[in-house]
Amino acid sequence: MTSTHAPIAPAPLDLQGDVVALTRALCDIESVSGTEGPIADAVEAALRAVGHLEVLRDGDAVVARTHLGRAERVVLAGHLDTVPIAANLPTWTTGAGDDEILHGRGTVDMKGGVAVYLKLAATVREPRRDVTFVFYDNEEVASVRNGLGRLVRNHPDWLAGDFAVVGEPSNFTVEGGCQGTMRIRITLAGKAAHTARSWRGINAIHAAADLLDILKRYQPRTVEVDGLEYREGLNAVAIQGGIAGNVVPDQCYVDINHRFAPDRDIAAAEAHLRETFAGYDFEIRDAAESARPGLDHPAAVEFLTAVGRPTAPKFGWTDVARFASLGMPAVNYGPGDSMLAHTDEEHVSTAALREYERELTTWLS
Amino acid sequence: MTSTHAPIAPAPLDLQGDVVALTRALCDIESVSGTEGPIADAVEAALRAVGHLEVLRDGDAVVARTHLGRAERVVLAGHLDTVPIAANLPTWTTGAGDDEILHGRGTVDMKGGVAVYLKLAATVREPRRDVTFVFYDNEEVASVRNGLGRLVRNHPDWLAGDFAVVGEPSNFTVEGGCQGTMRIRITLAGKAAHTARSWRGINAIHAAADLLDILKRYQPRTVEVDGLEYREGLNAVAIQGGIAGNVVPDQCYVDINHRFAPDRDIAAAEAHLRETFAGYDFEIRDAAESARPGLDHPAAVEFLTAVGRPTAPKFGWTDVARFASLGMPAVNYGPGDSMLAHTDEEHVSTAALREYERELTTWLS
Repeated sequence: MTSTHAPIAPAPLDLQGDVVALTRALCDIESVSGTEGPIADAVEAALRAVGHLEVLRDGDAVVARTHLGRAERVVLAGHLDTVPIAANLPTWTTGAGDDEILHGRGTVDMKGGVAVYLKLAATVREPRRDVTFVFYDNEEVASVRNGLGRLVRNHPDWLAGDFAVVGEPSNFTVEGGCQGTMRIRITLAGKAAHTARSWRGINAIHAAADLLDILKRYQPRTVEVDGLEYREGLNAVAIQGGIAGNVVPDQCYVDINHRFAPDRDIAAAEAHLRETFAGYDFEIRDAAESARPGLDHPAAVEFLTAVGRPTAPKFGWTDVARFASLGMPAVNYGPGDSMLAHTDEEHVSTAALREYERELTTWLS
Repeated sequence: MTSTHAPIAPAPLDLQGDVVALTRALCDIESVSGTEGPIADAVEAALRAVGHLEVLRDGDAVVARTHLGRAERVVLAGHLDTVPIAANLPTWTTGAGDDEILHGRGTVDMKGGVAVYLKLAATVREPRRDVTFVFYDNEEVASVRNGLGRLVRNHPDWLAGDFAVVGEPSNFTVEGGCQGTMRIRITLAGKAAHTARSWRGINAIHAAADLLDILKRYQPRTVEVDGLEYREGLNAVAIQGGIAGNVVPDQCYVDINHRFAPDRDIAAAEAHLRETFAGYDFEIRDAAESARPGLDHPAAVEFLTAVGRPTAPKFGWTDVARFASLGMPAVNYGPGDSMLAHTDEEHVSTAALREYERELTTWLS
């Protein structure tokens, strides 16, 4: 007996066939963050069926790895979740040949990369290096829910390796490292009074004038690290003050986000902000370490040689930094244009998916 | 048949007796803004019982006036409502003689003044000038609900006269006129961008630096009008900007309250702000006219001579200005300390109530 509302189990994934068909099959299993159960089940089952991989699972994250006793191990990682559907599933294609485009949620961010990794897992049975494949949940939501972060906490040994590639779309540019980030709050104090007798008060919003002036005049650094140029930033991201339309406000706060190049760690970034805002107290609201690109690591050099693609710094804090926190060099490298991610028009060129498969097969074989 | 929840009608008010007893009777009829029905009923009934007055009613506002054909008419006005009770009813007294204090909600703001006016209405049957007594609702809440404002709109003829006294507590200082007020909003525009690539954006909060600097450096005027010194003010009363912790904000607004001396009207105040904030657009959110003290008016001069009290400017916008809007000079003058208004410790000296009664009886008789 079946309920009309019972979910239909997806057909088994074919990891040996065409990578575009596999991408479509993955996209057509809806997996908005928090609902990755069915896709993780399908991925786990397909990886177990391959036969030569150790398969591990934590929540809706699936890890599969070879144990060939190679001198080095590389990690290929991709997330299984997507942002919400926008009437852009099931997938569809337009054009043909080199102009064929695969449209739909997840095509670029990032089930194309996931499909290539799954196909590599099934087809490259004797890689030159041991390989660990990591498929994880909840990348598109709050960092605290991130499945890769959970693996770092629960099973850092599952992620161990010499070099990692995260297959987020990068338009075939190898993006290395990432800025660190720090958010601080500066609270300005005043003294409340009725605005009709404002000389009795001290206006906390007016007191923000000098602070905003520091921000306005600040000249962010551009820093070269391991051959890549990183641009920093220092920005007010929130300001709030005021009690009522007839009260001199006694408090105003400014939240400031500093993005710092990977030549600085959190402690150095804090010291810089203490100097920049000398005379102001501040509270650190959150912070995440930067990650050096690490492109001088032998495994990274070999990867760059194999794919023959340009390199660029990564701006923003990405899951690449989670590998950096484990002491591994890591890069972001995947098919498609990240500007299309999260848009209703999300799509990827099928030629890019096939090219990505070719490059990584060459590298691993 | 009575319901246990039926309100008990208050005992009739005795307008001929002791003014302290009358104040207590008025205070003990709870009349938090919006619930003035019972006290307005009691006041109306007592005024009708007096016999020689025309009695008018609009909502919970009651107006009573003589028609003796005098050359001048004066208006005495007080509000019937209070801020919420704070376990400070029923009223109680401490001390005795000149040190006797009447405690409880409404004692100072302003049923003491109302009690004196009601007693004058009943006892000064042949005043030298025609007198209009105005008792109104909803003074302690949003201006749009103010009962005196409603009378100005619905029945300006009920309020007509040559001079008005509003009996709010002023510690026996005659407070004249009031500042005008204007609230404007200046919205600063920027361009949103991820803070990791902040060079692509324009930070709207940083753009507020120069505006806050204008406010910080602004030197408000002190202006003498009709012999009284008015201090102005220009204050940011709210600032808000920011979208998320990782976004360069594309908008920030600053709300500014200008309090201006009665030598300027709204148009002149706006012109001053356009000059002060040259280069910024702003939106006027609300404005209220200033009121000149008008203490040079013959009726005002005679009042000042009769009571023999010091004069001072009134800061803040009060109901005095509603009379000014009708072209009448008006002052604020009443027993008790306005600093006690709205506090849990609200109280008034009973000697002050009796002194206030004596002074106004002398003036009217």
